[in-house]
Amino acid sequence: MSRFWSPVVKTLTPYVPGEQPQMQRLVKLNTNESPYGPSPKALAAIESQNTADLRLYPDPEGAALKQAIAKLHGLDPKQVFLGNGSDEVLAHVFAGLLKQSKPVNFPDITYSFYPVYCKLFGIEYQAIPLGENFEINTADFKTPNGGIIFPNPNAPTGRSIPRSEIEALLSRNKDSVVVIDEAYVDYGTESCIPLLRGNACPENLLVVHTLSKSRALAGLRVGFAVGHPDLIEGLERVKNSFNSYPLGRLAQAGAIAAIEDQAHLEETSAKVIQTRTKLVEQLKALGFETLPSTANFIFTRHPQHAGAELYQALRDRGIIVRHFKSARIEEFLRITIGTDEQSNELVAALKEILN
Amino acid sequence: MSRFWSPVVKTLTPYVPGEQPQMQRLVKLNTNESPYGPSPKALAAIESQNTADLRLYPDPEGAALKQAIAKLHGLDPKQVFLGNGSDEVLAHVFAGLLKQSKPVNFPDITYSFYPVYCKLFGIEYQAIPLGENFEINTADFKTPNGGIIFPNPNAPTGRSIPRSEIEALLSRNKDSVVVIDEAYVDYGTESCIPLLRGNACPENLLVVHTLSKSRALAGLRVGFAVGHPDLIEGLERVKNSFNSYPLGRLAQAGAIAAIEDQAHLEETSAKVIQTRTKLVEQLKALGFETLPSTANFIFTRHPQHAGAELYQALRDRGIIVRHFKSARIEEFLRITIGTDEQSNELVAALKEILN
Repeated sequence: MSRFWSPVVKTLTPYVPGEQPQMQRLVKLNTNESPYGPSPKALAAIESQNTADLRLYPDPEGAALKQAIAKLHGLDPKQVFLGNGSDEVLAHVFAGLLKQSKPVNFPDITYSFYPVYCKLFGIEYQAIPLGENFEINTADFKTPNGGIIFPNPNAPTGRSIPRSEIEALLSRNKDSVVVIDEAYVDYGTESCIPLLRGNACPENLLVVHTLSKSRALAGLRVGFAVGHPDLIEGLERVKNSFNSYPLGRLAQAGAIAAIEDQAHLEETSAKVIQTRTKLVEQLKALGFETLPSTANFIFTRHPQHAGAELYQALRDRGIIVRHFKSARIEEFLRITIGTDEQSNELVAALKEILN
Repeated sequence: MSRFWSPVVKTLTPYVPGEQPQMQRLVKLNTNESPYGPSPKALAAIESQNTADLRLYPDPEGAALKQAIAKLHGLDPKQVFLGNGSDEVLAHVFAGLLKQSKPVNFPDITYSFYPVYCKLFGIEYQAIPLGENFEINTADFKTPNGGIIFPNPNAPTGRSIPRSEIEALLSRNKDSVVVIDEAYVDYGTESCIPLLRGNACPENLLVVHTLSKSRALAGLRVGFAVGHPDLIEGLERVKNSFNSYPLGRLAQAGAIAAIEDQAHLEETSAKVIQTRTKLVEQLKALGFETLPSTANFIFTRHPQHAGAELYQALRDRGIIVRHFKSARIEEFLRITIGTDEQSNELVAALKEILN
């Protein structure tokens, strides 16, 4: 604490990311990274960069990357906003779109960074409780609001809702922005991006993506948002009042090649889905109850064993998963889907622990 | 304009960075990049990264990079804050330290991003006029304030003040933070970092550095601030409420090697200083009046030729410099110091234009 801090700093409870342990021979299933690595084309694009050019500033607009994203998704480059990971994109979304006179709405159990942004930017929020089975009921988002945001699939539950429900939500909320955070969309969830194509693009829908999960570039820091050009323009104004050059040259080059290699994404996502299906079965045989997941992680609990206890016992065996000490979910573990081998190691360790 | 923007967005006048033109065979003297490129050790460190590891998140704390910076400058790692370029560092400084009930003070002619941050974060500011010869007179910073910030050397003037003046300013401003932006310090300006060493470290001094200028890594996006651990803790709280991972794996690896290669910095900075001295003489012979510069750029005007006219005439010849359409400085050109060859091309073009 220092008397020189701005008043808001004293009130902040910063987000705590999953740890990046330095232990050797670790089974790291705690931060939803891809076990398969990025597209070889992305790696080649980074390696073929003329690194001597690093003396020069990157393109502050990221025009080539916007073009690649627009082409992949059938959009106009003016519908694309770039950021240093989707966390930075979300920060600008809160500051630039969701700071309104009415409170922003999001589920009570969701990405725990949302209330942190609200504190930072002085935004009021109202948390809408998930249903009994931890599902998002869009019908519960019915009070006047200054914006709605949730991940689809939701985190850390992994549960998703169909696009048609989001369309209905949009039609009931024409006066505020609806932000769908699709960080984990590529593992079996319907994306809302098709709604943004052509003249029917809603004025108030924004979809946020990251290259840290299905594109396996968490170490490069690239995320983006797509939506109506007017929403994007607002975000650009905020970004250009904050940091002109959020994406370096290597990040832009790697991201372009990754976006262009959709086959790699589809192949690795399919493997993750396969491993997820198998893991859920194996856990069921051990007595675990797992929420239905369309993400690259599952959210699971064991009726006879406390979440904190399982977390620690796994950790003692070199397997790191995520545990949240929050009401309603403290008995759960969030487990990233790794390779089949990692999955088998996890199951073997759990068998040992439960016996 | 969109009715979905947060109210503040409508009021923003975003910063306009120097352009990054795509023209071929350009003499690019507009954004103060190093003409000599980064340390070969930084390039080697980036190239030797296991790019497959890009699937994993980087260290959110950047511990190894903080350690390298602390070692170079004789500080404790707890005195180091990292960001995605010094522009992001400055953004967090404005939000986390300079947003106070009293206005922040900075020179009327200075880095034009400062008032942009103030608009974004709702910070009042008071611009203190530079002296007749565009010098910062610290004695003029005498009103109650919520913080003081200026670059040393100042931008875009290139003029610097000695450390002793900043020490005196600190002793007169014990109740607010003084931020010295040392983006261009390595070309002949006294750094304030020695004041931060050991137990005598002032509670209210923060020094901001970038790797985009003398370390020639503008394309990698790394900056840092050093100061009292309590100030750094405040910045960390803001950063961890905004984006946990601002620096990717390649950026951290390259930055560490660059920081460790002080010899490369000294060698390339000495060359820039030599070229600067020669260029100022050549311009004098052509009738230009140049402010005394300790930066890697000069600020110069010609009594018989308008700044805008010279800017355009140079541009027509493929030489890009920076021109600001602002009161008091619209007759000036800000010219980055390039190689001797680039300097000679510039002088030849100006001779042609003036004849």
